[in-house]
Amino acid sequence: MVAMAQVDLNCDMGESFGIYKMGRDEDILPWITSANVACGFHAGDPMVMDRTVALAAANGVEVGAHPGFPDLMGFGRRTMECSPEEIRNYVIYQVGAAQGFCRAYGVKLQHVKVHGSLYNLSVRDESIFRVIAEAVAALEPSLLLVTLAGKHAEWMIQVAGEIGIPIALEGFPDRAYAGDGTLISRRLPGAVIEDPEKVAQRAVQMVSQGSVTAVEGTVVPLSVDTLCIHGDNPRAVTLAESIRKALDAQGVEVLPMSRMIQRCMPRESVLESRLRK
Amino acid sequence: MVAMAQVDLNCDMGESFGIYKMGRDEDILPWITSANVACGFHAGDPMVMDRTVALAAANGVEVGAHPGFPDLMGFGRRTMECSPEEIRNYVIYQVGAAQGFCRAYGVKLQHVKVHGSLYNLSVRDESIFRVIAEAVAALEPSLLLVTLAGKHAEWMIQVAGEIGIPIALEGFPDRAYAGDGTLISRRLPGAVIEDPEKVAQRAVQMVSQGSVTAVEGTVVPLSVDTLCIHGDNPRAVTLAESIRKALDAQGVEVLPMSRMIQRCMPRESVLESRLRK
Amino acid sequence: MVAMAQVDLNCDMGESFGIYKMGRDEDILPWITSANVACGFHAGDPMVMDRTVALAAANGVEVGAHPGFPDLMGFGRRTMECSPEEIRNYVIYQVGAAQGFCRAYGVKLQHVKVHGSLYNLSVRDESIFRVIAEAVAALEPSLLLVTLAGKHAEWMIQVAGEIGIPIALEGFPDRAYAGDGTLISRRLPGAVIEDPEKVAQRAVQMVSQGSVTAVEGTVVPLSVDTLCIHGDNPRAVTLAESIRKALDAQGVEVLPMSRMIQRCMPRESVLESRLRK
Amino acid sequence: MVAMAQVDLNCDMGESFGIYKMGRDEDILPWITSANVACGFHAGDPMVMDRTVALAAANGVEVGAHPGFPDLMGFGRRTMECSPEEIRNYVIYQVGAAQGFCRAYGVKLQHVKVHGSLYNLSVRDESIFRVIAEAVAALEPSLLLVTLAGKHAEWMIQVAGEIGIPIALEGFPDRAYAGDGTLISRRLPGAVIEDPEKVAQRAVQMVSQGSVTAVEGTVVPLSVDTLCIHGDNPRAVTLAESIRKALDAQGVEVLPMSRMIQRCMPRESVLESRLRK
Repeated sequence: MVAMAQVDLNCDMGESFGIYKMGRDEDILPWITSANVACGFHAGDPMVMDRTVALAAANGVEVGAHPGFPDLMGFGRRTMECSPEEIRNYVIYQVGAAQGFCRAYGVKLQHVKVHGSLYNLSVRDESIFRVIAEAVAALEPSLLLVTLAGKHAEWMIQVAGEIGIPIALEGFPDRAYAGDGTLISRRLPGAVIEDPEKVAQRAVQMVSQGSVTAVEGTVVPLSVDTLCIHGDNPRAVTLAESIRKALDAQGVEVLPMSRMIQRCMPRESVLESRLRK
Repeated sequence: MVAMAQVDLNCDMGESFGIYKMGRDEDILPWITSANVACGFHAGDPMVMDRTVALAAANGVEVGAHPGFPDLMGFGRRTMECSPEEIRNYVIYQVGAAQGFCRAYGVKLQHVKVHGSLYNLSVRDESIFRVIAEAVAALEPSLLLVTLAGKHAEWMIQVAGEIGIPIALEGFPDRAYAGDGTLISRRLPGAVIEDPEKVAQRAVQMVSQGSVTAVEGTVVPLSVDTLCIHGDNPRAVTLAESIRKALDAQGVEVLPMSRMIQRCMPRESVLESRLRK
Repeated sequence: MVAMAQVDLNCDMGESFGIYKMGRDEDILPWITSANVACGFHAGDPMVMDRTVALAAANGVEVGAHPGFPDLMGFGRRTMECSPEEIRNYVIYQVGAAQGFCRAYGVKLQHVKVHGSLYNLSVRDESIFRVIAEAVAALEPSLLLVTLAGKHAEWMIQVAGEIGIPIALEGFPDRAYAGDGTLISRRLPGAVIEDPEKVAQRAVQMVSQGSVTAVEGTVVPLSVDTLCIHGDNPRAVTLAESIRKALDAQGVEVLPMSRMIQRCMPRESVLESRLRK
Repeated sequence: MVAMAQVDLNCDMGESFGIYKMGRDEDILPWITSANVACGFHAGDPMVMDRTVALAAANGVEVGAHPGFPDLMGFGRRTMECSPEEIRNYVIYQVGAAQGFCRAYGVKLQHVKVHGSLYNLSVRDESIFRVIAEAVAALEPSLLLVTLAGKHAEWMIQVAGEIGIPIALEGFPDRAYAGDGTLISRRLPGAVIEDPEKVAQRAVQMVSQGSVTAVEGTVVPLSVDTLCIHGDNPRAVTLAESIRKALDAQGVEVLPMSRMIQRCMPRESVLESRLRK
């Protein structure tokens, strides 16, 4: 008997602020299993966080914290020259706040995924990834840290193992990949795939075959635990629905990352690494 | 055998921001038992919170969250026309963040005391006090909510009992009281008592005799669990030392509010009120 | 020969922030003559201000500054307990910034209209209105200060005359008025009139007959220089078009408030009041 | 007859925020001729700006705007990945606000000096320097732009000439210079000179001899119009007094940069460059 393929679908949520609305959270929630909730630094505010956690809980979607740089005006997309210690404390502050709303709704925070340029920085700079992982471990060592799947994930898996937290690797079905398994820069033409059919096929390929077809046409291995659904564009709902339906049709089990029986970085190795310390 | 009188000494801490320094936290910590840590809305930032929680823990001082209005420019001293729901969510956000830093240092958040004009509002307006108490209960029902001692504390004790959280009543030894047991407005002459000797005597009177001498000369009953030490003025350290030494000399046991064997609002009644629900 | 009736049409603009979009500025600009540009405290940011001033200039629409309370999270709709001196300096700061963008585009700032709860406060509290008028006078005494038309405008005209700045009185064709010429609170049913036809008729009545029909059915005198078009709702464009077309059809000359040959408070009296000083 | 040597002394001012105090502005003002007033993004707020402009005017000190990155938490010392257009608009916004306070006090803004990491960026990256210079020119082409003296000033003089604004070159008497006339990084030992006597001697050398002695011992040519006095450290007042007295004793005329009869970049060449356009 072959084990059923499993995957989580995550999407950024709660990015409204004050009277400003962003995203179609209500319409996307039925198709996903994990929500990354903005924590008030690059987007979101306490009212929005409250509403978003309530909404996710009501839809049976797991909640994650989505901390970013303290830059509302730039939506956390501009790199800030912060020290590792500053980043550590920004993560603790924001994830702590998100855990507050989770407790108020009787749910447990499932994961942490850092936002925007902090995400990009964390997958390039080990010292930044390390302080983020340490901050997460300090808050709650069972929290999953979501990071970029690909060849470069190796050192991140290593660091997370040392620190003793589980990680979940994410793929981007609507983004073009290079032959070395890295993402093509958004600034280049063709970097974002718009056709829902094609995006859904890529999602299925990532989960069922553990690979992605690079722009050069080569098939590159890519192990993913979760697929990122972009929610900040008009066709987000269509894409989410299309991906979910294609996965369902292929018999892939779509479920929250914390309930997957086996992830790219198995819990056992985390436990082992902790015992070794 | 007569039970030893007990009292907690609390002081606002962690009110620096970025490169701006405020208060003499290091010098005051040896004299107090509970620190109210600013949470980034009216003062404080993630770096300062981290440092302050670490410092309190190193001094064996219990940590409380000190949430305020989102008004750094006004230091949370200006009333903002927020809805009860907004206040509830601002409290959850800020206390959640403070709990994050506590977990990172392996300490348990002891109490919540709201700041400045939010404090003033909460002791005047039951609907505001209620949402604050509910927010605290939603986060952790064993958290102590610190509020103003005096005749007006009766309805607050009632509300806290209904919601099922313990409260701690605080007195202000350096502030003048009216004959009805309320504080004299800071804007009036003589509202703040500056002489350390006199302030220390008033502290002892509050704890040992359960009373305060009003400006009219009458002795008014006042039951307190904790005394507030103001930290944002140059003579704060002298005052803190003076109060602590006078209490020690009188055989008053100075200890964190959570370790007092009996408070103005006994835990039992909280438990009872919860059982009744 | 009868002089042609004249009126200005003003609308709030530039209320987007960072990646958050608000309002349909491009679609409303063709129908109005004066734009109130948010200045970064309650809405707007330097990028948005630059774009909005450029857009208004390209449409031949006059630019005004629209300062508010420093409360982005509450969109300036929450009253803050600021001192008159704080309000004066918030106005100078924000209007000064708006003048900067005007200079960069070679246009002259035409007017100042304060926003949200600061507006409401200014028409109720003479000390607040006075510091706002003084701030405007200190920046540029030929700037028009827009405020609420009605019986209560008398003391504002008096204060503006003393300070030596011209004011422009505004009416709200989509809002219900009481028999005493004041606005019905938004919280009451029927306070906002939604039918574009009816709103347009009320606009024509205000300008041509100098009156408004109150909810009681009585006709109340109301002298207006400018009509406020609300831009923050989906039907804003329809309303703006409907009002403009009705005014054009009735032969009312729609033009910027600074170019009207006669306003409710004539420039002469301003000059006279200045000479008297 | 030999022309008297001239120099301006500038210092950052108005860096307080809300209740947070920074710097000893009142004590430094008697020794300087130009004040760089923080504009609310990295430090300062409308109340502080008002007070600082009033104070400078009362001391006969010329006012400059000191815009920075929108990062109060990092005091504008952290580089932010802003686009040139964002930087242009941040400068227009902040300088516009500063001009507002100047008009309110009947003084004319003399200069613009960008702050912290924006300053460092502007002297390294021509595209950034160019948009800053263009923003200044768009606001008021007679505003002086203060930038770093040294060999690298050549391209900045060129760019300013093309745009048609005058610039003033500044030296740092309390900073160590390398043999190529650039500043030694603050992170290196010996980068900051603390002895007031030595700093004063270096100031005199810069002005009288047009040179600086580098760490290697070589004498490097350095033409300066203004010397920067650091105000954010405890010995700032002593340093300011020491520098001023040494310059006075050497017969150097200390006066605002706008009143110097000849600057490193003469006004004539600015006018010529403008005529050529």
